[in-house]
Amino acid sequence: MLIHSASQLLTIAGPPQRGQELGRLGIIPDGAVLFEGSTIQAVGPSAELLASYPDAERLDAGGMVVMPGLVDPHTHAIWAGDRAAEFELKLQGKTYLEILESGGGILSTVRATRQATIQQLVKQTSARLWQAFRHGATTIEVKTGYGLETETELRMIEAILQLDHEGPWELVPTFLGAHAIAPEYKDDPQAYTDLVCREMLPALKEFWETSTFNRPLPFVDVFCETGAFNLAQSRQILEQAQALGFPLKIHADEFDNLGGASLAAELHAASADHLVTSSESDIASLAASGTVAVGLPGTPFGLAENHYTPAQKFLEAGGLLSLATDLNPGTTWCENLQMSIALACRYMKLSPAQAIAAATINAAAAIQREDRIGSIEPGKQADLLLLNVSDYRHLGYRYGGNLVNAVIKRGKRFPLPAAELEVQ
Amino acid sequence: MLIHSASQLLTIAGPPQRGQELGRLGIIPDGAVLFEGSTIQAVGPSAELLASYPDAERLDAGGMVVMPGLVDPHTHAIWAGDRAAEFELKLQGKTYLEILESGGGILSTVRATRQATIQQLVKQTSARLWQAFRHGATTIEVKTGYGLETETELRMIEAILQLDHEGPWELVPTFLGAHAIAPEYKDDPQAYTDLVCREMLPALKEFWETSTFNRPLPFVDVFCETGAFNLAQSRQILEQAQALGFPLKIHADEFDNLGGASLAAELHAASADHLVTSSESDIASLAASGTVAVGLPGTPFGLAENHYTPAQKFLEAGGLLSLATDLNPGTTWCENLQMSIALACRYMKLSPAQAIAAATINAAAAIQREDRIGSIEPGKQADLLLLNVSDYRHLGYRYGGNLVNAVIKRGKRFPLPAAELEVQ
Repeated sequence: MLIHSASQLLTIAGPPQRGQELGRLGIIPDGAVLFEGSTIQAVGPSAELLASYPDAERLDAGGMVVMPGLVDPHTHAIWAGDRAAEFELKLQGKTYLEILESGGGILSTVRATRQATIQQLVKQTSARLWQAFRHGATTIEVKTGYGLETETELRMIEAILQLDHEGPWELVPTFLGAHAIAPEYKDDPQAYTDLVCREMLPALKEFWETSTFNRPLPFVDVFCETGAFNLAQSRQILEQAQALGFPLKIHADEFDNLGGASLAAELHAASADHLVTSSESDIASLAASGTVAVGLPGTPFGLAENHYTPAQKFLEAGGLLSLATDLNPGTTWCENLQMSIALACRYMKLSPAQAIAAATINAAAAIQREDRIGSIEPGKQADLLLLNVSDYRHLGYRYGGNLVNAVIKRGKRFPLPAAELEVQ
Repeated sequence: MLIHSASQLLTIAGPPQRGQELGRLGIIPDGAVLFEGSTIQAVGPSAELLASYPDAERLDAGGMVVMPGLVDPHTHAIWAGDRAAEFELKLQGKTYLEILESGGGILSTVRATRQATIQQLVKQTSARLWQAFRHGATTIEVKTGYGLETETELRMIEAILQLDHEGPWELVPTFLGAHAIAPEYKDDPQAYTDLVCREMLPALKEFWETSTFNRPLPFVDVFCETGAFNLAQSRQILEQAQALGFPLKIHADEFDNLGGASLAAELHAASADHLVTSSESDIASLAASGTVAVGLPGTPFGLAENHYTPAQKFLEAGGLLSLATDLNPGTTWCENLQMSIALACRYMKLSPAQAIAAATINAAAAIQREDRIGSIEPGKQADLLLLNVSDYRHLGYRYGGNLVNAVIKRGKRFPLPAAELEVQ
């Protein structure tokens, strides 16, 4: 298949983009891309590729932007129930404690998720993944973390793998048994930490080793925050995970700075995420490492707060910066990564080009898939978007809608279905 | 047609909702609505309507929310060209003056619009109206104002009427020849004001009177702001319009308070819009009048500013509050009124119920159509939405996506087409 006559073909070629290099889109005007099966074979000006491959099946992009599929490297897309009532209470000024007392907060999602069957989890999550996919996310990281007990956490992993198998998207599972202290251990966080280390992680490893599929081990993540896991507990979990061979991620510096970002750099985590309250020294540690800093602008927006990741500081320090939605039922229910780009332009002061690179090649690095996705280069997987615009800057400039005209995943074009007559 | 088994049928019945009454949704659990042709005949519990109208064609809403079509009472949806480059300059911190000097700002849209044919205007605008419609706006006000000369302003009116005729939506035209001082008059704003009064308004009146269609006169609007029209000039234009029989609107108190809001109340304008810097006395004047206050939260969001309409003050004073997108190429290119609801919840502290009433019955009042649209009541027009959710509060709670499953306009159901292979 030869897609030609793109007004701008954004290759975003080359390695993940560090510091002020972020935003190198590698634009080919009147560009074309050739792929065979799921693999990109050639990229260049339309005239050149049309001449070189006269027999290829053709798709005229008709002056649209063609770009790599978006990559969402941080979501909590799988859960049961919703927290619409809690949203209303928050607007009324109810405090976190009042919401907890009224049965809200993360533990209400844990209750609903523990009660859900794998079929129910798959059905509810599938609707959200379709929203993400039709808005251009072709690879999506999905975390567990609403089970907080071995059985439900593993059920969530199984549901993620089933969803990955069933849908057009590509999912990257992350184990987040350390998302919160399980209610059974609320007075003894250390005992829950020990449970994660001694029971959950070995069980996850065994599940992987006894499965018939052949996929890389999932990420192990931890929420390092006041009220969740302190720095020592976070280190304990991540070091145990690392000893078992799992690649690492961390939620750090969302509200309080406990030192999680520097821990991520020390342990060579794939990413450190949120990073709103990171210190100069945390930023320097991350910038000196291979750990990707993931900004999640939907979260403060969803909460109507004004605390965004200080993106410019990460870029000035020479760090690797990425973007993700943080899709979750408590703080930000938005599946649309284009919206994260629009928010990042306005509140993290990224240019559209920087935000696009952050949500493609650098997002691929945040899930250690930059060798295969995140750019349009020969040998890479044919994950492509056609946008209904002729200038890439409309991503960022426009918001709240969908500029995606067509999604191509692993070389297969998916017409985007109209909304289905079904409650989501 | 009988739509039944809605989890919640939001009737929003009754008059526009003043002050703290805002948010009365008139929810019927397991609700149903019957319409014949374009007119609603009956509303009530599903069991009741299914028994009373056994022969009606049925549509099972399957547990979805059914609500009135959204009404967008303030857009500048018709223009040519775009200002993506200007968006990038703003992010880089370029000032308004620097942008003007580089050829940006409203006058760049005026140049492009003056050069566009009516066919070009219709084509570009149609893509935007489809976005608005598929996100649930069934009635959309559209302003002229990128011509700033009689001929182009009238061409814009003609394009709006043609779009109204061609599309499934219902458009409400507004004449905004007084959107900015035309470049030819930049040193003599009074001369341009006189031109609007002596040439444009009479020409518009004549155009209407000699047309074969039979529709109410369009609104006449003015941008009362520093750098645009001062209070005396705004009064001159609005009084002349009123003398000719036009209903009135005004852009007031967006950046500076020149007294436009109180002028709107004095002249019985249908609405006063923006109202970010309105004083206590302006708010009291509006609240004592029939003029609807229209909040436009997309505008400060689009500009990454933090100056939102003080909605709670309007409600405390007993005013009529509405919401609109302000869709335009300079400050906020977002066709999605659901996004305005989500912004209003977060930044104007409206509850989802208040924001929904503001974007339906009160928005209908802002365009003087509350007798016909904005609620689900016998005798009203069958403008309905089916949402992919079972609880109305998901509007507001979720953002950046589309919860609309189906749109019914004047009794006709429009399946929402998938994105078309065409540059917008």
